[in-house]
Order: sequence, then C-alpha cells, then structure tokens
Amino acid sequence: MTKLDEKEIIDVIASTLGMGGDLDDVALVGKNIVFKADMLVASTDVPPCMEPWQVARKSIVSCVSDLAAKGIKPHVALISLGLPRGCTLHYVEGLAEGFAVAEKEFGLKIVGGDTNETNDLVIDCSMIGFARGTSRMPKRNGARPGDFVIVSGMFGLPPAGLAILMHGAKTTDGMFRKQAVDSVLEPKPRQSFGIALAKYFSSSIDSSDGLAISLYELAKQSKVNIVIDNIPIMDGVEQFAHENGIEPNELVFHGGEEYEIVATISKARLIRAQVAAKKAGVKLHVIGRVQRGPGKVFVDENLLENRGYVHFRLR
Amino acid sequence: MTKLDEKEIIDVIASTLGMGGDLDDVALVGKNIVFKADMLVASTDVPPCMEPWQVARKSIVSCVSDLAAKGIKPHVALISLGLPRGCTLHYVEGLAEGFAVAEKEFGLKIVGGDTNETNDLVIDCSMIGFARGTSRMPKRNGARPGDFVIVSGMFGLPPAGLAILMHGAKTTDGMFRKQAVDSVLEPKPRQSFGIALAKYFSSSIDSSDGLAISLYELAKQSKVNIVIDNIPIMDGVEQFAHENGIEPNELVFHGGEEYEIVATISKARLIRAQVAAKKAGVKLHVIGRVQRGPGKVFVDENLLENRGYVHFRLR
Repeated sequence: MTKLDEKEIIDVIASTLGMGGDLDDVALVGKNIVFKADMLVASTDVPPCMEPWQVARKSIVSCVSDLAAKGIKPHVALISLGLPRGCTLHYVEGLAEGFAVAEKEFGLKIVGGDTNETNDLVIDCSMIGFARGTSRMPKRNGARPGDFVIVSGMFGLPPAGLAILMHGAKTTDGMFRKQAVDSVLEPKPRQSFGIALAKYFSSSIDSSDGLAISLYELAKQSKVNIVIDNIPIMDGVEQFAHENGIEPNELVFHGGEEYEIVATISKARLIRAQVAAKKAGVKLHVIGRVQRGPGKVFVDENLLENRGYVHFRLR
Repeated sequence: MTKLDEKEIIDVIASTLGMGGDLDDVALVGKNIVFKADMLVASTDVPPCMEPWQVARKSIVSCVSDLAAKGIKPHVALISLGLPRGCTLHYVEGLAEGFAVAEKEFGLKIVGGDTNETNDLVIDCSMIGFARGTSRMPKRNGARPGDFVIVSGMFGLPPAGLAILMHGAKTTDGMFRKQAVDSVLEPKPRQSFGIALAKYFSSSIDSSDGLAISLYELAKQSKVNIVIDNIPIMDGVEQFAHENGIEPNELVFHGGEEYEIVATISKARLIRAQVAAKKAGVKLHVIGRVQRGPGKVFVDENLLENRGYVHFRLR
C-alpha cells in the first residue's frame, strides 16, 4: 500500500476527469456563478478546546476564505454533516449556533443540508456566490514576472496558537498567548480585503495550507519563481519562537490554520490597489516579487521548502 | 447522552437558523439556480462487494436522484473526498473512474473538489442545476386532497439485493438474484422520468430513504393523509420474500437503496402527465390517493409504520 498525499489524489482524479490543475480552486459556472466546497474533518482540523459553535463556524470560514481570495462574497451555503453516533443534543445545538453566528458574520444564508452518521465529525460546506459583471476572477495561474507579491496580514500567530494548544509551548506574554489561541479558535477570514482588492490581483489563493505551500501553488500554477524579501512576521512571534526553541520562519512559512490572502499584483496596478485598500480600511503588505523561473520560491537567496505544518520540536 | 435521529438533528439546526422544514429538500437560489448536496459515508452507505468505481458513482447517483425528483438535470458538481489514511492508488483510480462514468451517464461536469483524510471513506457531492424558465419546481409540501400518488417504478428489488448481500438471503431464481444485486451496486436514478414529468407534480421526493418514509415526508410536509391501494411490488419480490420468511411489504415499504421518484399529481393533470410519460418512454404508476388528514399514511385500511430499513430476520 502506497500512501498518497493530497496532491497525488487530486492529480489522479483531475487527470481521469480531463480537468486542469485547478481542481481545488474555486469554480466559475456559466457567466458569474462561483461554486466552492470545503470539508472539515474533526480529527485533523479541530484542535483541542474548540467549542462546538467554533467548529461549525470554522467549517464556514474555510469556504468563505477561499472565496474571499477571489473577491467573492458567498450568497448561500449547503451543510453536509457527518455526526458520530451518540452525538448529544447539546453538541448539535452548539453546531447550530456556530452556523447561525457564521451566517450573520459573513452575510450568507444556509439553505439546506444533509445529515449522516460517521465515525469522525465531518462538515462539508458548499457555497454559491456571484462574480460581479465586468471584473475577472483571479485564478492561481496568472502571476507574471515583475508582479508584486502581497499578503493581507502578518503570519505566525495561529501556528503559535497551535503550538500552545497542541504541544504545550509556553510564553511569558499573556496577551500574546490569548491572541494566538483566539486566532486558532476563531479565525478571521479576509472577506473585506478580498472583496475590495481581488480585481487588482493577477493571481490569488488563501493561505490556509500555510504560506510556503500557498506561494508554491501560485508559482507552480503560474510557471514563475517568487522571491520573498520582506518576511511578513507578526509582532511577538519572533520572541515566542525564541522562548520555545522554534525557528521563527517555521511559524511564518510552514504553519497553517491561517486565513490570510496571498496574491500577486502587476506593477501597473499596485498604486491603485494601495489606494483601494486605504479606502476599504484594510492593509496591503508587499512581501516580494515574481520572477521568471520554473516554479520555485526563495526567501532572499535561500530556496524555501515546499511543505506545511510539521510537529514542532519543543525544548 | 441521548441518541439523536436524523430528523431531530435537522430540526435543531433548522430551527436555530430560522429555516422551514425543508432543510433536506433541494434549494432554489435566486430565480432558477437549484442547489443540492448529499453525503455518502462508506460504513453506512456502501454494501460489501461494491467496487470503488461503483462507490464513486453511487455518491453522484444520490444527488442526481434528489434533483431528478424535482425535474432538474445537474449541470456541475463539486466532490469533497474524505479518504482513509493508507488509501491505495488503485482505490483512488477506481473512484476517479466512477466519477468519470457518472459524468457521462448523467450529463454533468465535475468542476472541483476538496480532499481530506478521514477514518471512514466520505464523499460529499454538491450540485448545481438550472430550473427551466416558467415551470415551478415541486416541493415536498404541495400535495392536496384528491391528488393521485404516483411512482416511477416498482419497489422491493434493491432491499432484496441488500438482504442477499448483507444477510445471506437465498433465492433459487438466478436471474432475480442478479437483478437484485445489480440494483444495489449500480442504482439507476429516474432522471428521464423526473425531467419529463416534474412539471405535473404537486409534490415530489426521491425514495432513497424507503417508500414508507418518503410517503410520510410528503404527507407530513403537505399536512394531508395518503392512502395506498395499489402496492408497487416488483415481479419476483413476493416469491423471494416467501423463500426467505420475510413479509413482502417489508421489502416494498421499509427498504432503502431505491432511487425511484414518489410524487403527487392533481386529478386535472393526470391525463396530461400520462401522455407525457408515454412520449418520454417512461412508465407512471398510480398507487394511491391523497386525502384530508393529519399526515398519516395507510395501505388500504391499515396504518403504515413510518420507518425505514430494519435488519431482516431471516429463516
């Protein structure tokens, strides 16, 4: 038995179905219907201490974030629930509350669903949104040499939160601890950022698989190299990393549970995008440039490893 | 810990979200976008001997059947896959082949997906179809006293197949055995039937939860009684039932794995529906009538139990 990774599985299915490499990007149906699904599996996607309402909200966040990277606000959602046998009324009420919170927070309506019995809690969320008339939706493959690489925020806080929740990492900074843990339990997708700025993107993706994997996905799909020369590290992450004997870049590039937007913008459009960001009250951070190349990512001179979350070795 | 059934779970979520009772029916979005999701879980939905391609095809069939009952042909689908760790390349290739078979068979296009690691194989399929301009899509709550109750075919064959596959039921009729087993492994949803006739339905549902549950769903949602006076039993099912000491009505009403359409049609439209059925090369079977009442279902004079599949006690 060979163990397959997610990419290999997608490749087998995409090639059998005669699809391009964008099986896991959002799909455009007809002129303007945007269609996306995302599955949450408790044993891999739910850290300890997460309350039922937070689990349900997170299942919505993943899909909202994928759509936000394309500038799309979801209109309606369907929820397919797989619940473990013996699930309590209290737990289901908690999930329902989380769906209600997410409906309000992200301005969408849950219009139906399906329930099943599973071993593990599984929530698959599928959404429909509508692309606006004239603006073209950014794909993963549109980055061009000379483009700027931008992100919607700083990185490293949710991976620090995961290290605290799952691996007993410590910090003397109580405020940082709270922010890190909250960023895992109640992630904030960048809906306003994406909706305001997606029309300027030449390519885009959300960063929920980690920054390194997201950058590689854009580089490979676009057949370009990316060079990061301004590492987007969140305040406090460097100190936290040192306190726990973790390499700070490990938290910034190889984390996960992060719902930032990673995108590229042509030189000609950057100023307009910066003006639009200011108008929308969001911050756009330039972290690097796109160059000719075969799909590699560098941080300054060094080749970045294309991998996500790995268990941290703590002191 | 209280064990919740599917209906109770749906009620908790639907009431928290302020939805009507139709959470598990197909959803109409905007003027004509029809949106539906259905989750297959291997441990409950996949009988032994089912090949990977048949499992993938079945995950599509469930959704196709739900849409067929509303007269809708799906246009595109997303597939969220939860695969057990250690899943082989051969298995994934089998699944991919099944998706390709289903695409061709049902005239839809798979446009994206998501993959995850789960304990059990889980396939959630979400689909978009389009309702035609002027025709109203039948719901579950439109049955009116005086309407006829109709089905797209006879019942009992897949439950007989399940009894053979899962409980060692026997039959001396080799042809029946093959048909029964095939009906479980490669179910045929009633796409042509639904597309040709849905415009005549006052209410409709697919029968995948079993005929009794489907009839009760129409009766309860429509706040009417249903009386069945012409039991739709498939040829050979009665003999098979006697050979195995099973009550034939158990197979007809309390089976499952059946993808027939159950609907109601007003007296005024029945003749037109019969003409349309003939034209489309499908058969419409009248099995009973709708009456005033509080949501009960009778077979002749006897109250029908509102339950699905129960393990058969075999001789």
